[in-house]
Amino acid sequence: VSYVAVVGPGAGARKSDCALARTVGRLLGEAGCTLVTGGLGGVMAAAAAGARSAGAHVVGLLPGSSGDEASADVTIAVPTGLGELRNALVVRAAEAVIAIGGSWGTLSEIALARRTDVPVVCLAGWTVQDDAGRPVPLETADLPEDAVRWVLAKLS
Amino acid sequence: VSYVAVVGPGAGARKSDCALARTVGRLLGEAGCTLVTGGLGGVMAAAAAGARSAGAHVVGLLPGSSGDEASADVTIAVPTGLGELRNALVVRAAEAVIAIGGSWGTLSEIALARRTDVPVVCLAGWTVQDDAGRPVPLETADLPEDAVRWVLAKLS
Amino acid sequence: VSYVAVVGPGAGARKSDCALARTVGRLLGEAGCTLVTGGLGGVMAAAAAGARSAGAHVVGLLPGSSGDEASADVTIAVPTGLGELRNALVVRAAEAVIAIGGSWGTLSEIALARRTDVPVVCLAGWTVQDDAGRPVPLETADLPEDAVRWVLAKLS
Amino acid sequence: VSYVAVVGPGAGARKSDCALARTVGRLLGEAGCTLVTGGLGGVMAAAAAGARSAGAHVVGLLPGSSGDEASADVTIAVPTGLGELRNALVVRAAEAVIAIGGSWGTLSEIALARRTDVPVVCLAGWTVQDDAGRPVPLETADLPEDAVRWVLAKLS
Repeated sequence: VSYVAVVGPGAGARKSDCALARTVGRLLGEAGCTLVTGGLGGVMAAAAAGARSAGAHVVGLLPGSSGDEASADVTIAVPTGLGELRNALVVRAAEAVIAIGGSWGTLSEIALARRTDVPVVCLAGWTVQDDAGRPVPLETADLPEDAVRWVLAKLS
Repeated sequence: VSYVAVVGPGAGARKSDCALARTVGRLLGEAGCTLVTGGLGGVMAAAAAGARSAGAHVVGLLPGSSGDEASADVTIAVPTGLGELRNALVVRAAEAVIAIGGSWGTLSEIALARRTDVPVVCLAGWTVQDDAGRPVPLETADLPEDAVRWVLAKLS
Repeated sequence: VSYVAVVGPGAGARKSDCALARTVGRLLGEAGCTLVTGGLGGVMAAAAAGARSAGAHVVGLLPGSSGDEASADVTIAVPTGLGELRNALVVRAAEAVIAIGGSWGTLSEIALARRTDVPVVCLAGWTVQDDAGRPVPLETADLPEDAVRWVLAKLS
Repeated sequence: VSYVAVVGPGAGARKSDCALARTVGRLLGEAGCTLVTGGLGGVMAAAAAGARSAGAHVVGLLPGSSGDEASADVTIAVPTGLGELRNALVVRAAEAVIAIGGSWGTLSEIALARRTDVPVVCLAGWTVQDDAGRPVPLETADLPEDAVRWVLAKLS
């Protein structure tokens, strides 16, 4: 079994990002992956719902100390009590990461994945430029199918 | 679903402790609990095997950065890379703890559980005395059935 | 005493970024701040040297388990053994952050600071755009003096 | 410089344990050590006061997210936000540990030190027996001078 994280904004996520996340979650589940998320709402909850619809396991590494904050489709809730340090734990527990949408928390996870050589691909998210205005290379995908295909190729 | 941790010595655990752990794991699985362990060998692996035989999920919160070190019956491997800090994470992720056998790592988990008010019961393990030679109160059980019954009563 | 973190690339940092970091460290030290860093080379070591030249304390929150990896001017070495999770710890231990130069590790710290409402200002670093190509607001400074003045105003 | 941790009960510590801790802190400071503590009251605060009276640095690795909870004599406050996970960080940051008095938190630190081969000596604390009633070997000292001498010998 492969563990793939889907990261993205929680409460306040755009509907379009949640729709992408739901499809990504479903495709990962259909491919036999276990989904790893931060366990909360928004993109995380949508990916969880998609994965669950395909019968996959969903691990929620929660920032707080209670499993009660996990979204409905989390099948394994792990309350870490680590606050935002759990972002790094999500990345560490995953063999690859799909980032959907833009937020500072999401960007921290993309950056940590790049820093630690965990393959990461971005859908509909923020981009980064260096101080000369050049884009910093970051794998992107236009469609959920492309993102999942890229990740599965990395894991095979 | 309730999350119950079984903690105890890894490699080097006594056969008798592993036998207890296997029974405890099975009983927890039959009661519908999800097992949380440190994911390695010895007591952890035996409890995982028992839980798995009853069809339960087994979460392995591993000290290292690779899921490959998880024992065979771990169904959800979470490589934390935290070393012995993961002992506190095992306790935090559980609603109750059953400790089987004696080792310093095991004692750290018992102590962290007591420190953070997570119910913990000990089978065949170390005992603690204060500096006046009086026993420091610690719930103990003689049989796997008793330990599991005590934990389930705490969770209900 | 105020605790201010300087974050930036380690080994492989640009000389120009290290020069900025040294000045920032010195100015923070002259202002009576304690410097918090990740304890390694490059920008971290340069900031440490600057702070030390002004007689300030330098805390190095190291990713590894040995204090021996601390740069020469770290006065308080804290080996955390947390790997890149210590990036979040650097941010958490600081009341404000000055980021100098661009790298994924540095960006993770900027993002974590923004995520957790720790004031952060960037010198000579990466910038971020949303998926419509608009800049994501991020405080920047052109000169070390400006960055330190901004931070001190936030802390007063 | 050597980093030595003094661990023990916080609020609620016995006066006699605090008196021992103050002397231990002073002796460590006179020996040129930097003191590492959990940063709170009781034994931690007493050791900090002793070390400070000898002009030593005192690192407080705090469980919460604010440096304000540090005791008066902490010279370097590191709010970790890790809760009781910071116990393992205290042990990891130290080259040796002196435990004074008995509590579950203290015992967790003794156990983690033993688990990770950090030298630890106990003053006026709990003792541990295996399930056959035999004492589990644990270095103890009767006097602060003995504990500090033992630690300094380990570090030389």
